[in-house]
Amino acid sequence: MYIVHVSIKVKEQHISAFRKVSIENARNSLNETGVARFDVLQQQDDPSNFLLVEVYYTPEAQLKHRETEHFKKWRAAIADMIAEPYTFVKYDNSFPNESGWANVSQ
Amino acid sequence: MYIVHVSIKVKEQHISAFRKVSIENARNSLNETGVARFDVLQQQDDPSNFLLVEVYYTPEAQLKHRETEHFKKWRAAIADMIAEPYTFVKYDNSFPNESGWANVSQ
Repeated sequence: MYIVHVSIKVKEQHISAFRKVSIENARNSLNETGVARFDVLQQQDDPSNFLLVEVYYTPEAQLKHRETEHFKKWRAAIADMIAEPYTFVKYDNSFPNESGWANVSQ
Repeated sequence: MYIVHVSIKVKEQHISAFRKVSIENARNSLNETGVARFDVLQQQDDPSNFLLVEVYYTPEAQLKHRETEHFKKWRAAIADMIAEPYTFVKYDNSFPNESGWANVSQ
């Protein structure tokens, strides 16, 4: 799997709006064939910090994701909501193997 | 959901052993009733960095996890493998909701 964790710091006044558009983007992303998971997490001790947990079957699936209309819409919508440029870390799955990341579209 | 991301820096010479005992611990943890996911991720650009993605149904489930034999065995096994004390961040799930974290034991 090709796993990308995107850390996003959001301006306090935009937390609710960011959450809403990110959930919409995640829901649409799960309908892409190359996407296994697309979780939107909010940090408990600082709700202005979000983490997107994007799990792709291949690196190419991430590139395809970035060409979708829902991604472009999300990216434009959040441009003025974020407090600083977002950062990301890429991971490989040691566990579980590929069968443990089934896409159960929400 | 009660989500805990544990970041662990491992000594270079222990990466393979750490990976092995952590996969065993994750597999056993998935058999706990309160555990939805227990992913073991390895950072692509620095394989000495691991991230445990622990997804519990409740905070109490994490406490129960820490009382299990497999957790205690893992904690003892990694004591000399880690390069520094591990750190963790706790998250709430904005998306998906509880039904999107089904425990499909590996």
